[in-house]
Formats: sequence, C-alpha cells, structure tokens
Amino acid sequence: MSSLYTKRAVTSFSNLLKSRFKIFSDPVHGFISVPRGLILDLIQTPEVQRLRRIRQLGIGYLVFPGAEHSRFGHALGAMALMHDSLLALTEKGTEISREEHTSALAAALLHDIGHGPFSHTLESNLISGFRHEAMSRILLAELNESFGGRLETALQIFDGDYPRRFLNQLVSSQLDMDRLDYLRRDSYYTGVVEGRVGVERIIKTLRVHPDTGGSEDRIVVEARGVHAVENFLIARRLMYWQVYLHKTVIAGDHLLRGIIRRVRMHLRNSDSALPEGASPAFLFFLENDITTDDLDVADVRNNYCALDDTDLIYSIKCWRKSADPILADLCRRFLDRDFFRVSYLDSQASDALKSIWTDRVRAYLKNAGLSTDETLEPDASYYLVFDQSDHSAYEHVENSIDVLQRDGSLIELSEAVRVSAIAGVSGRETRPYICYPKELGD
Amino acid sequence: MSSLYTKRAVTSFSNLLKSRFKIFSDPVHGFISVPRGLILDLIQTPEVQRLRRIRQLGIGYLVFPGAEHSRFGHALGAMALMHDSLLALTEKGTEISREEHTSALAAALLHDIGHGPFSHTLESNLISGFRHEAMSRILLAELNESFGGRLETALQIFDGDYPRRFLNQLVSSQLDMDRLDYLRRDSYYTGVVEGRVGVERIIKTLRVHPDTGGSEDRIVVEARGVHAVENFLIARRLMYWQVYLHKTVIAGDHLLRGIIRRVRMHLRNSDSALPEGASPAFLFFLENDITTDDLDVADVRNNYCALDDTDLIYSIKCWRKSADPILADLCRRFLDRDFFRVSYLDSQASDALKSIWTDRVRAYLKNAGLSTDETLEPDASYYLVFDQSDHSAYEHVENSIDVLQRDGSLIELSEAVRVSAIAGVSGRETRPYICYPKELGD
Amino acid sequence: MSSLYTKRAVTSFSNLLKSRFKIFSDPVHGFISVPRGLILDLIQTPEVQRLRRIRQLGIGYLVFPGAEHSRFGHALGAMALMHDSLLALTEKGTEISREEHTSALAAALLHDIGHGPFSHTLESNLISGFRHEAMSRILLAELNESFGGRLETALQIFDGDYPRRFLNQLVSSQLDMDRLDYLRRDSYYTGVVEGRVGVERIIKTLRVHPDTGGSEDRIVVEARGVHAVENFLIARRLMYWQVYLHKTVIAGDHLLRGIIRRVRMHLRNSDSALPEGASPAFLFFLENDITTDDLDVADVRNNYCALDDTDLIYSIKCWRKSADPILADLCRRFLDRDFFRVSYLDSQASDALKSIWTDRVRAYLKNAGLSTDETLEPDASYYLVFDQSDHSAYEHVENSIDVLQRDGSLIELSEAVRVSAIAGVSGRETRPYICYPKELGD
Amino acid sequence: MSSLYTKRAVTSFSNLLKSRFKIFSDPVHGFISVPRGLILDLIQTPEVQRLRRIRQLGIGYLVFPGAEHSRFGHALGAMALMHDSLLALTEKGTEISREEHTSALAAALLHDIGHGPFSHTLESNLISGFRHEAMSRILLAELNESFGGRLETALQIFDGDYPRRFLNQLVSSQLDMDRLDYLRRDSYYTGVVEGRVGVERIIKTLRVHPDTGGSEDRIVVEARGVHAVENFLIARRLMYWQVYLHKTVIAGDHLLRGIIRRVRMHLRNSDSALPEGASPAFLFFLENDITTDDLDVADVRNNYCALDDTDLIYSIKCWRKSADPILADLCRRFLDRDFFRVSYLDSQASDALKSIWTDRVRAYLKNAGLSTDETLEPDASYYLVFDQSDHSAYEHVENSIDVLQRDGSLIELSEAVRVSAIAGVSGRETRPYICYPKELGD
Repeated sequence: MSSLYTKRAVTSFSNLLKSRFKIFSDPVHGFISVPRGLILDLIQTPEVQRLRRIRQLGIGYLVFPGAEHSRFGHALGAMALMHDSLLALTEKGTEISREEHTSALAAALLHDIGHGPFSHTLESNLISGFRHEAMSRILLAELNESFGGRLETALQIFDGDYPRRFLNQLVSSQLDMDRLDYLRRDSYYTGVVEGRVGVERIIKTLRVHPDTGGSEDRIVVEARGVHAVENFLIARRLMYWQVYLHKTVIAGDHLLRGIIRRVRMHLRNSDSALPEGASPAFLFFLENDITTDDLDVADVRNNYCALDDTDLIYSIKCWRKSADPILADLCRRFLDRDFFRVSYLDSQASDALKSIWTDRVRAYLKNAGLSTDETLEPDASYYLVFDQSDHSAYEHVENSIDVLQRDGSLIELSEAVRVSAIAGVSGRETRPYICYPKELGD
Repeated sequence: MSSLYTKRAVTSFSNLLKSRFKIFSDPVHGFISVPRGLILDLIQTPEVQRLRRIRQLGIGYLVFPGAEHSRFGHALGAMALMHDSLLALTEKGTEISREEHTSALAAALLHDIGHGPFSHTLESNLISGFRHEAMSRILLAELNESFGGRLETALQIFDGDYPRRFLNQLVSSQLDMDRLDYLRRDSYYTGVVEGRVGVERIIKTLRVHPDTGGSEDRIVVEARGVHAVENFLIARRLMYWQVYLHKTVIAGDHLLRGIIRRVRMHLRNSDSALPEGASPAFLFFLENDITTDDLDVADVRNNYCALDDTDLIYSIKCWRKSADPILADLCRRFLDRDFFRVSYLDSQASDALKSIWTDRVRAYLKNAGLSTDETLEPDASYYLVFDQSDHSAYEHVENSIDVLQRDGSLIELSEAVRVSAIAGVSGRETRPYICYPKELGD
Repeated sequence: MSSLYTKRAVTSFSNLLKSRFKIFSDPVHGFISVPRGLILDLIQTPEVQRLRRIRQLGIGYLVFPGAEHSRFGHALGAMALMHDSLLALTEKGTEISREEHTSALAAALLHDIGHGPFSHTLESNLISGFRHEAMSRILLAELNESFGGRLETALQIFDGDYPRRFLNQLVSSQLDMDRLDYLRRDSYYTGVVEGRVGVERIIKTLRVHPDTGGSEDRIVVEARGVHAVENFLIARRLMYWQVYLHKTVIAGDHLLRGIIRRVRMHLRNSDSALPEGASPAFLFFLENDITTDDLDVADVRNNYCALDDTDLIYSIKCWRKSADPILADLCRRFLDRDFFRVSYLDSQASDALKSIWTDRVRAYLKNAGLSTDETLEPDASYYLVFDQSDHSAYEHVENSIDVLQRDGSLIELSEAVRVSAIAGVSGRETRPYICYPKELGD
Repeated sequence: MSSLYTKRAVTSFSNLLKSRFKIFSDPVHGFISVPRGLILDLIQTPEVQRLRRIRQLGIGYLVFPGAEHSRFGHALGAMALMHDSLLALTEKGTEISREEHTSALAAALLHDIGHGPFSHTLESNLISGFRHEAMSRILLAELNESFGGRLETALQIFDGDYPRRFLNQLVSSQLDMDRLDYLRRDSYYTGVVEGRVGVERIIKTLRVHPDTGGSEDRIVVEARGVHAVENFLIARRLMYWQVYLHKTVIAGDHLLRGIIRRVRMHLRNSDSALPEGASPAFLFFLENDITTDDLDVADVRNNYCALDDTDLIYSIKCWRKSADPILADLCRRFLDRDFFRVSYLDSQASDALKSIWTDRVRAYLKNAGLSTDETLEPDASYYLVFDQSDHSAYEHVENSIDVLQRDGSLIELSEAVRVSAIAGVSGRETRPYICYPKELGD
C-alpha cells in the first residue's frame, strides 16, 4: 500500500528521518502503511485496541486451529484495501480529495468497532434486538467528538449520507472492503484455500460510474472483472458453508448460548450455583435485560466497551466449577472442546423425530447424573436443538453490482454472463439440523 | 510426497548413501520423490524429455507472461498427485499392490505423452481428425515394448480395461490427476489465483467405493469434500473463460491457424513464396494430408516425435521473411505479439454484419498493401473470423461424480447440495465472437 | 501428512465410513492427519486444550498484529513434522516400529505442554528458577499414568534416555521438530517472509547415521542439504532479532514484568491498592514464593494448569482501575499498547548516562502525577531499564549438526562449507539498550 | 503497482472507458500496471518481444523443471519494482519528476535487452570478450533514435551519467531492481523457497540521502531494514550455490560449450559432418570470429537480434543426426538431459589425478565407439573438464550499501551489525570440480 497524498516539499533533511507512515507487517496484505495523524491516532484509541482482544471468527478457532486472529487485523486490512481502491480509482480519473481519502480510510478502519466478543453467536443474546452496526455508529460519533469533529465526513460515509455515493459503497455494499478483507483474511488463517478471493484483481477492475440520470455516482465493475466477481461470490458461499456455518462451529454456538441461558436462570433464581469471580461487565448484561434502546446509556456503553473475549472465557472457567452439574458440564465441554454433534436432516424434523430424540437425551442426562429434575424437560433443552442454517449468496434486488460494458452501458451482474454460475447460488439455502451429545451415537 | 512401498531391510550402510529416490523441486507441489527404477527410467526417455520443449498452454504464454511452463512439469505433477491419492486411499483401507502403484504412476506420467506443439490450437490442423490421446496410446505401447512389457498394467489402466476401475478413474475422469494438476499448475503460472484448486483437500476426501451390485469399485467423494469439489468445478470454469479461452488466446489461435493455412496454400501452389529453412518435420505435416489413420506409419510417428515448439517458432521466424506480404505479416504479428482483436457478440453474426466487416477488412488489406488480389475474398479470410467459444463445466451423464453420504449411500454430486452452484454451470456456455485487426478500431 | 502404518485388511464396508484419522486444517502445513487412538485422545485432554489459550509469541501479537496464534497449533505442527520426518527416514531404510512412531508423535505433541502464559517474559518471574521443560516433564509423567503407561516410550524419548538416539534428537536438538515448526509458523503469522525456512527440503535430507564406533545412531544431514540448513540458521537468527527480540517486544516485556513487580509490592504491603477480581490462580503465584522445587506440589500444579493468557489479561484489566497511579498507568499502557521506547546503545550504559536518565524519568513521574514518593527511586525503576538482548545463532560444541559426505564420512556443519556463512553468526551477539517512556523524546 | 502520476481532470466519460494502463498478470508480483504511451510502446517492440524467446536461467530449466521462465517476465518485473521504489521514495519526500519516473521505468525495462540465448553459458563463447551490457547499451541507443530521442534520460540513467545518482543506483548497484526481481522470480519458478527475498520490506526501507559533502544523492537503507538486506545477501548466495552454480547446471554448461567447440571445429575443417538446416543466425557467430569490437556492425547486430533459444535448440536437434559420433552424442545428451556428472574436489586437481581421469575417459570413448582418433587427446577434452565455480556474496569496496542510522549518520552495512552474518560471506568462495560421464562411476 502506498499513499498518493504526500507533500512534495521537504524543508530539511532531519525531517526525512521521521517517517510519515507507521508500517504494520500484515501476513495477508504484506506491509500496511498507516499515515501518521488522524488515522494512526485512531488506531491508538482504547476502542480500536480493544479489537485485539476479540477474535474475528468467535468460536471458529476451536474448529480451525489457525483461525485465532482478532478483529484488529481485519480493521487494519479493510483500511488498507480502501486505500488501494481509492488509488485504483484515482488512476482511472476519479478525483478524490485528501479529506475524502482520510475519511474513507477512517470509515473502513472503524466500520466494525461496535463488535463484541463472539458476536456472531451472542449478538442478540446479550442485548435483545442488538446489531453491532448500531454500536459502531455510537462509538464512531463519540470518537468524532473526542477528535474535535474530524470524523464528520467519515460519519456521513458510514451513514450512507455522503453525496458521493461510491464512497459509501466501498464501506458497505455487496462488494465492500469489509467483505474483501474478511474473506481473504479468514481464508489465510483457516487454511481453506478455496476461499481465497482475487482481491487485487477485483480492485483493479473497479470504476466510478457517473450516474447520468441523477446526481450520484457509484461503483461498477469493468467487464473484464466479471469472472473475478463471480468467483468472489462463489468463494463467499463456500466460506459460509465450510467455515462460518461449519457444523462444529454451530455446535459450539449452541454450547455458548446454553451457558448463557443457564447462567441467566441461576441469576434469576438468585441461587448459589454460580461461583464468585465472573466478569462484572459480562454479568451486567446477564443480570439486566438490556435492549437495543439502551445503547446510549453510559453504563451500557461502558460495560460493553469493557467486554472482550477474555471476560467470557475467564467467566466460563469460573463456572466450570459450578455446583450445577449441567452448567459445569456445558462449561467443561466448551473449554475442552468436547462439542455436541450437529447432523443435517433431509427436511425439517417431524414431531415424532423430536420426541424420540427428547427421550434419548433425557435418558442420557439421567444416566450421566447431569439432571435430577423429574420432568427433565427444561434441562434437555441444553442438550438437544433442532434448528437450521441458512445463507444467501447474492441478493439481486437490494444491493446489486453493475457491470460496465465496453460500450459504456451498465447491466446487472447476473445478466452479465449468459449462463450464469451466479444463478445457481443467488437463492437462499436452508439446511435443517439436529444438535445432540456425541455420546448418543449416530 | 513419500512412498509407502519401501523395503525395510537394509543390508549395509553403503547402500544407505544411495537414495532410492530422485527428488525434483517443483514450485507447485514442492518436492517430488521419483522412485528409481521403472518410473525414473521412463522420465529419462526421449519421449518424455520431449515434453520439456512443448509449452503446456501453447499460445497462453503470449497472454500470461508467466505461463511459459512445459508439459514436462505437468507430467511429473500428475504422477505426484497419483502417488498422493494412492497413499490417501491406502490410509482408508484400500489395498493397492506395488505393481498397481507403479503402473498407476506410469499411466499418470505418460497420459499426455502424445501431445504435440500448440496442440490445443493445431491438433486437427496438422493431422485431420487427430486427438492426442490416440498418439499417447501408440507411444505408450511402444514404450511398453522397449521396457519389456513392464507397462502392461499401465496400458490397461490407460485403456480403461483394468478390473479395478478406480485406477482408471484416477487417470481419466471428471476428477482425475490430469485435471487436478493442470488447474493448480496453470493457476500458479498465470497468476490467476481464483483458479487455485484445493487439490490436497480433494485428495483427502477420495475413497474407493466397492460397488455392491457389480464387480467394479470406483472413486467417490466423501460428503465433507462436496464443497471442495464444487469449488473445483467453478475454478475449472473460471480458468476456461479467464485463461484457456481468453480472447487474446483465441486471437493468437487464429493467427497460428492462418499461418498454417497460408503455408499450405503455397506448398500446394509450389510457388516461391516460402523461404528455405523451415523445419522438415513441420513441413512433413503441412505437405502431406496425414489423417488419424496414419498414426502407426513409422514416418508419421517419427516426424511427430521430432516436432516441438522449437520447430514451429523457428519456422515462423523463417516465414516472417516471406515474399508473400500476408504470410510475412501473419508471422510478424505472431512473433511480436501484435494480435488481432476478439470481441464477443450478443448473438451469432448476421449476414449483414459479416458483409460490413468483410468490406472493412478488404479496404484495410488494400490500404496496407497486404493484398493485390482483385477479389480479396480468400485473403480477407485470414484477417476476419466469425466463430464462437464454448465450454461445458460439468457433464451429468457420462462421467458423474458420486458423493458418499454418512449412511453409506451414494448420490450424484449435483444432488448432493440442495440449491446447487453446479446447476448454474452444468450447461454448455456459448459465446459468439468476431476476430479482426485492431487497426480497424472498435 | 500421511500415515505409513495403516492396517490393510478391511473387514466390512461400514468400517470404511469411519475414518482412521481426524483431519485438522492447518494454514501452515496444510492438512494434518491425526491418527485416532492415543494421539487423538491426548489432543482432547484439558492439558493440551489449555494450549489454545496461550499465545505462542506472548507479547508478540502486540507488535505483529497477525501473530495471535496459540501454542496449540504449534504442538500439532511439531507432531506433523515428526510424522513427515519419520516417513522420510523410513524411505531411506531406517526401520521404525509402530510403537516408536506413535511415541515420537506423542513426544513432539507434548514437548511444550508445560508452557505458561507469556512464558518467555514471565517464566522466572512467576516461579523462581523455573524452566518450562521441567513442568512439561511433570505433566507428561502424569498423562502417562492416566493413560495406563502408554507414554512410557515417549517419556524416554523426551528424557533423552531412549536407546535410539535419533528419536531424542528429533524432539530436542539444534534441528528438532520444535524449531522447524515454530520458525515456519511464526514466519507465516508475523508476515516476516525472510524467516521462512525450507522445512520440506531439510526433512528430505535427514538420515539416520549408525555411529560405527558406539551403539547409538543419530541424525545427520546429507551433503545436498547443507545450504538449506545454513539458511535455517540464518533465518533463525533473523527471526530472533526481527521478531522475538524486537525492540517493541522487549518494551512490552518490561511493562508486564513491571506490573507483576508492582502487584507483588502491594500484596506484600497488604495495602488496598489492588481492586478485587483478579484471577486467583494468577494471585497464587504472586502471593507465594514458589520455586522450581515446588512443581510437584498439587496446589502448584493445579494453579499452574488453571493459568492461561485469559487470567493475565483479565487481571490486568482489573488492575487498570487501581488507586495506585503507577500500577494503573502500567496496565493501561499494556492494554492500549502504549509501550515504552527501547533504543540500542553503542556500549553498556555509563553511570553518568544512567544518572542523567534517572533524573529525566523522575521529573516525568512528578509532572505526570504518577508518583508522590519523595525519593522516587523505586518508582522510577518501573519506567527506566538498562539491559541488553543477546542471542546465539549456533553453538558448535554442545549440539552440533553433522553433515554426511558422499564418501560416507561425517564432518561438522561449520566445516562443511569452506568460507562459511555460519562462521559469522556462530558467536554470541549482545545489544545493550535503554527502555524509557516515549514522552521523554529521543 | 499503481501510478502516482495521473491526470486528475477527466473531460468526458467516454474517456473513462479507455484505461490509461495495460495490466499484466504476473504470478510473482501480482498485477503490473503498464502506463500506455512510451513504456507500453517499448514493450511492443521486436527487441523486447524477443526476450520472450530467451529463458531467464538458460540451462536451469533442465535442472529445475519449473524454471522455464523467460527474460521478458523479468524485464516487466524489474520495471514494476522500479515503480514501487519510486513511489516509496516519493512518500518519503523525494521529488521525482514525471520525466524521471518514465525514464527510470524504461531503463529498468530495457536493462537486460542485450542478453542472448543461454547467455550465462555462451556469452564469451559466441562473441569473444562479449558482455551483454554492451549490447544492451547499443540497442537502447537505437531505440532512443527510433523513439525520437525520448529515451535520452533513460540512456543517461543506464550509463550512470544522470546527475541524480540514486536513479542510476536503482538500475545498477548491489541492491538494484534487477537483483531484487531476479532473486524473487527465480525463487518462485525454481521452488527454492529459501531464496525468497523480502522485496517489499527492502523497498519500504529505501531512502534517498542527500550527500552533504557533494552534489550527489544516493540510495541508503534505513536502520530498520538492515536485517532484510542481510537476508537478501544470504539469499543471493544461497541461490548462487543452489541454483545458478548447481552442479548439474555446470554439467549442462560444459555440454553446450562442447557442442559449440565441436561445431566450430567442423566448420573450420569444412568437412561434411554437419547436417544441413541449422540456424543461419547461429552459424554466423560460429563461422566468424566476432569480437566485442564488432557489435556496431549491422550484420552482427541483426544476427544477434535474430538469435534466440529456438535457434540453439533447433540447431542442436539438427546436429543430433551428425555423422560425427561425438557431436551426435553431445547433442543427444543435451536434448535428453543425459548430463555429465560434476563432483567437487577438496582442492585443485593434481596432475596425477588429471592423468588418471584422462586415461579413464579415453578408454570410455574407445569402448563406446565415440572416437577413432588414435591419440584421443582432443576428443577427451569434450568429456573431461577440471574447473572451478566461484562466487562473491558481497564486495565491500566498489559498491557498498550504506545504512542510515537514527541520528542521520551513515555507516557501511557490514559495520551496521556488530557480529555480522555478512562477514562470513563477503569473501570469495571457490569450489574446484571435475566433470565427467556418469558412466565412469564415482
């Protein structure tokens, strides 16, 4: 990565010794040059440094041993790709001011700042109705204040309010820097080479198209980039089914959700099953019914920012010693990676199937001494889940990608290739499954 | 790569100093251990060494500057992957004898031995009705003779006659070592990262399925390998449109075919337009009307084996000095990579369109002093082509891949995923195009 | 990776469905096949799973953002390379029994099991005189007991007592699986490509040499592997200065050690400066003067095994809120990566220099309101360190690598090349430095 | 790669459709953007296109099967790295005019344009006293003329006459774009991963230092780049011994030189041993005693430019059928890669050793029916060579690399690290060897 916007005049050689950039060694994109000033100052904030303590793939590292990377690297990476994209667009004649350039970098860097620990698993479990984008927005506004309004344009870009629409699109669209970075990055750390996206090729074929009818310009892909974008969509789908929705990841999700539900039960009962020592910030969210309307409350914000992977793992280590055999077992299973099994079903589970499995799980709980509950009904719910995974590879309507033809006309990507590989993946895929203790056999 | 079949007893330390393997450094698969004996002896034959002088992608190196690799590396690579596959199958309980192992290696090594120079362009232009597989078969049989029958089993595997069908499939099927290697290898040398196939993952999920009904066993893919195979099919399609059928590659094809057609015309006319010095082996095929029935004739075989990229390039360098301005121009264009332009058409060209372009090309030839022919009709045919590219990503019927489910049942790959990415690419894609001198503008 | 030791007989097809291996996707070595049975069972133990919560490079992830990988991946990797090495040696005629094979795998897997959190920084700070190898030995012995003695041979190999010395060497020597894996792995995650070691090449050139004079055989490198080993030594040195002893890593080390020293002071004083909530396991080691003689005590062992990165980070987050401004500042600096600066000195610091800097630091502490201590003497010690880094690339005497010449004779590596690159790096390098708050300028 | 020098004003959208860059897909550096205009026009010249037909490593592809890459890719790569370096220097405040930028790109692109086929083997064998730089200079001057003087500055840079010395250094010095590219590239194609140089890191640490005493500025390396440069020197040494001076490469060199010497003998004798059909351009150099003084002669220049790998291989294929058994044997050995063996000697061969081997080779020639010469003396010289390889890793004096310290002072690299790895490799290494037919045993 390299900056286009460098002052040419150099007053004295001593200045030369001070680099205008701090360089980060990133195994995915190589060296990332971060301009000193606003961008580097943002990186030094506690809000951004906190991302170092939140794993990008949540439970994923328990399935792909190499995927222990944090959201910090992703934030840097998205910023680096934003820089590359702006440079590529400039090469093709799009004027981008220095202010726009810095703001777009800031927006890319901070786009995920509102993520919490294991957020794909926990998002709506900790705060009802929560989506991390809302918290990102709040933290971005706060940073803007503490940086004296210098993030005003970045905020507009984040909100989708900036007049030059293409900058918004680079931050949030079907083909944004977020997706380009996380697919490439997660492929690198999981070792799933098939998910490797040709990021460089895609960026080289982006253009800004001045929407002739209206006032807005937007990102389009040149015709020669069609196959690279197709491949991006396919790779994304593959990463979903192979990594993000991997059956063992789902099994881990259910364990973690079970732990939280069980702890909440004990907190409600005010019983003595929870050992001392769990993280206060974590307990704050388990004891109170926080909803998405409370995000602005100082206490909520502060406890949220205090929370990271450390708090969760540390608390689960405490609860492993719980007197409640079920909570202790769920925590042990999580920490020692003794996960449930997830098996796909051909169709949604029938009541008969559910009933058979409920009986099996009840028997298991009794034999294993995990439950003394007569009915066993509620306890069984921690050990047996019927649910489904789903994923959409591509949405035609909301967020389409247009392809720029040689003659200057635009067509939607799915029409850009006659017999399209995209057609096959544009619908929604749904896979029902059952999740149960491995001990019950197949 | 490593061999399973090593003698354990070591008689003396001096023997230790002699390695039982010769190691090749392959940038694609790392080190390739070639067992001394039959396999290494085969590699040393002129027939296999000749592959060093035949580029894997023919004209491709003129479009992808890194793709200058020869068929020799591919032959080694296919052999290496065969070894890895046999090892993986053995790990899963399939017994493979030492004889079968060596024969399968030989078959993989020699499967492309009948390829000639620029064969994807020239195959049927040099020998009418020719397919390289036929020549591979002939050379394999000859080698079998000179190696005292030690390639008998390899021949059976090549012919598809070996009882254990899975060995045949590893040599020739939808998912054979040939495809696995060439996709991975061509991706490496072209720099088209999107074409990178997860070869290791695929090989790890292969199994031999003992066909319960009949006597034959065959290769199946375990359920967990489905996404890797899907990705393989998508990557293959991508490589076709992005590399093998790249518009500039097609433009080069037409140049080369034009040169050959023009030389044949002069040979027929016995005129003086052809400078001395072109390769006799090349001329042999241009002067005589060799058909696929003549492959067994000693002269044909010998001239074929004498022919490599060197002969073609060298001859084209000679003809560049031809008194025939058209031949000289075609040769210059080829050598200096001043190719025609290929543009896709929305549909098959109408007669009207053809007529307009024919007039434009005639005018071009006249102005450029390339043709003095009154009618210009035949000359124009070298500078204007209407044709189409087509490619099938996957054929359901003939050569299906079966997936082994957890319950032991088999289903066809295209059914193994509910909403399939494959569905979109299984049909035949056709793209009509026009090919013409760049000088004529868009 | 692939196993040599597979049963060939398959009784029924249903067996076929159960894989004899569990496959881990490792981004560094590709797929790692772990044999079911002892090895997989070991991986499932809490002792090994705990390594998932201990970062391989300790503080390194705060300098190289990608280096967030844990010791778990390294343990798997060392085991995978052991398998590859045994296979390579078998190919060259060395007989290795199934028992030896499994035991060597176990020894490689467990060789680092005694590591604690941030152990390169903390090793002797938590337990005086501690070395992780001693704890590895204890845990290995415990596992042996709980696995009914099946780790007896592994223990012998670990201890260097197994008669076939080459197995010991693969676990612990100048060129062991530990080093081969961690260099390759740390290079992958830091993005320091220059540290990339040609592991495959080195393994391919190992041999077992039957020491003619004595009873022991040992690992030697074939002559053709000399350059690869040279490169390994150079890469190792580079990784030391560029990564492990990176100036910012050292700055982080001093912060962490300062925190621990400060907390100990408060614990000794029994004052109220420490907020509640820090990890009991961590406090156990801070409150008690544990020495290396206590490792066998159950309490020590249990608290040690309960300790991981989570405990340290979580505790530091607690202490960040300490009433002691110095402790709070050190913790903040650690968490927000506001490290001290480390500058190399041309020679050991003179008393005059030390005195000047001590005055500067005292003034800084006073102005920043960090210290109210009259003398400031002890407080300054947290903010000013004079020390040195040192590293030995290669030790001739203790642990030499021998090279096997074509004639069967052995010579020491440093003699194997006439003008040696090794000569230049074999000595001990020492670099004195000063560590101080950045706020004090250059 | 990306251009800094782009016009910002865009007059109309139709212009947008025409890219100002042509993009090459390079597997080594990714996408290379070539600015349309002078640079792209230069690439289209026959002089540059000719480099596509000259392998970068000459005989190397017969030892490393993947190393079939041509000098064309290297020319592009050196140009790409030049662009990256200029951008990095600009970021650090060095002003570079558009004219200088384009000229430096041209100089990097054309720096090797004078190379001939197998030039490391043949350079002085075809033209006595020849060095390719002299021919590069002549062709560069010719291109300058045909491009109307637009290469004037490039010529100055090539000649080392341009006032801003750092531009010369980027083209030709210890750390120039040529070396950075060829090491990285040859490592990629040979698969010798140890030779992989951290090109990106080195470029990021380059600076222009304004020589305070004089008028010239020059390239220096920042202190933090020291280890990367050390590693570059080590990697270069490794590549020399492992690749460029590989024993089998040397064996191939001797074969090729033997063929040329033998053909010259027959041409001198005007006998009938040479079959018709060899390349006239090649014969031109074999028949005439061309010296380095003749380079300006049109005939010499034209024949030189007509010559590429094709001519040599094609001619050797002709001579394989020679009636002279020795020439036929040498050609067969070359084409079928049946090379001689090269063994290192502990010291220069004694006369006694030479005499023993001469007898053995004479006997071999007689028995094999290769020679009927009574004395056998001259014939034996084709089959037995005593010579030596040598290589200097680093020259302190002539072409030193300076390191820029934090305080602004410069020190020579070899002093920049106290105990230097460089010290060990700075001297000249010499390895005497013997080269003889494998059939003679060890």
